[in-house]
Amino acid sequence: MATRTKRFAAEYELYYWPSIQGRGEFIRLALEAAGAAYVDVARLPQRQGGGTRALFALLDGEGDGVLPFAPPILRHEGLVIAQTANILAYLGPRLGLVPRDEASRVAAAQHQLTIADFVVEAHDVHHPLGVDLYYEDQKPESHRRARLFVSSRMPKFLGYFEKLLQRNQAAHKGAGGHVLGKALSYVDLSLFQLASGLEYAFPHAMKRLAPKIPRLLAVREGVAAEPRVAAYLASDRRIPFNEDGIFRHYPELDPARARATG
Amino acid sequence: MATRTKRFAAEYELYYWPSIQGRGEFIRLALEAAGAAYVDVARLPQRQGGGTRALFALLDGEGDGVLPFAPPILRHEGLVIAQTANILAYLGPRLGLVPRDEASRVAAAQHQLTIADFVVEAHDVHHPLGVDLYYEDQKPESHRRARLFVSSRMPKFLGYFEKLLQRNQAAHKGAGGHVLGKALSYVDLSLFQLASGLEYAFPHAMKRLAPKIPRLLAVREGVAAEPRVAAYLASDRRIPFNEDGIFRHYPELDPARARATG
Repeated sequence: MATRTKRFAAEYELYYWPSIQGRGEFIRLALEAAGAAYVDVARLPQRQGGGTRALFALLDGEGDGVLPFAPPILRHEGLVIAQTANILAYLGPRLGLVPRDEASRVAAAQHQLTIADFVVEAHDVHHPLGVDLYYEDQKPESHRRARLFVSSRMPKFLGYFEKLLQRNQAAHKGAGGHVLGKALSYVDLSLFQLASGLEYAFPHAMKRLAPKIPRLLAVREGVAAEPRVAAYLASDRRIPFNEDGIFRHYPELDPARARATG
Repeated sequence: MATRTKRFAAEYELYYWPSIQGRGEFIRLALEAAGAAYVDVARLPQRQGGGTRALFALLDGEGDGVLPFAPPILRHEGLVIAQTANILAYLGPRLGLVPRDEASRVAAAQHQLTIADFVVEAHDVHHPLGVDLYYEDQKPESHRRARLFVSSRMPKFLGYFEKLLQRNQAAHKGAGGHVLGKALSYVDLSLFQLASGLEYAFPHAMKRLAPKIPRLLAVREGVAAEPRVAAYLASDRRIPFNEDGIFRHYPELDPARARATG
């Protein structure tokens, strides 16, 4: 099938919504942390082949390769690749963001998918009835789901990631700040993004949980201090969190004091 | 870390809830279709090292290897692997259930993750407020979510899979019944499971959609007729669908006539 969409000079082309971090941010962070040559296509002006028009062209099947269901989408060497964890599994070895051995790559993919599961739940707090209704049309349901998310799901998932970090530190002395061995991986970057998003959306709940997740918070600090990541976060390439993305700060869903569930 | 859990003679060990199909079924189907030597550990009697006790031991971190968050879990050659799509990406090349080239493996993983996204939505129809409440405690919310699921999400996802099949058939003459090239892959098996589960849970909605998804229904028929799969489906190793799993038949969520959404 002929490619009817523009190609760019950069090695990697990322296609994602231009006004939110969303799931695309997990890919942006990997590309930025590795110093990869990439273009964030939909954030380019339309006259340069960018804008959401370029993104919709791929979703409409106008690129060669596999039809994506949803962004983020990566184009690289003739491949069109979708699904966040799949893109990261593809990029990881190429960007030096995962150890080379199969066991580590399988573990990284597993962790990324558990993060993805949690991201779905973080999103569904403000969309418990689905994406076809606005938050404003499902507020009572969001309130109920938020109470369960904060009291049960956040401790369960974050406690699990804390345990992973503890086990990695026990296995690799000096591994502080990393979840796989002793080097930065794309899973560390994703844990940074997860912790950052939760602190934006649920600052009160995160403050209550903080004493129980010191290692996870250390990963977040460590990643933020990586020179390339720090430069990215300070640039206008980093889109601020906002109420169109996955992690939304609706104060009514994050009360200052924990409440009974149900 | 020493293994404190029993090992079995079979090459592959699957750990999953013994009384439901659930996400474990995607793994069971792959192992069965390939004629792999495996043991479904939690379905063995406890005195043989089975039962849910064996599953909880892995979840409690008593196996060597990576700590899983949730089942299904595969043990193979010293690895402990979790996350359904990750297990299938690992098994695919070993069981001959995915083409060997990287582009096909990446495409298969992408499709499996899109199926997984849809499975989450199919589950959340009866658990819109989360897994910490019973269906009976979130029935009005389930009704609203079911209407949106049936009217919007089912056509969107199933229409997408139909398009994938159409594109594969256009690229490979005679590929009828397969989503990747001309041979059976684990994605075909998962599409079979998805279509079967939806027909169990939402028979009326599936009947209305049937004319729009002939290729997907042909995949389901083709997979069911694969000799090893047919033998499995006729055996007592196949757990019947039930109302503890992902795909639940609650007639009130699948009205005979489509209703307005909202």
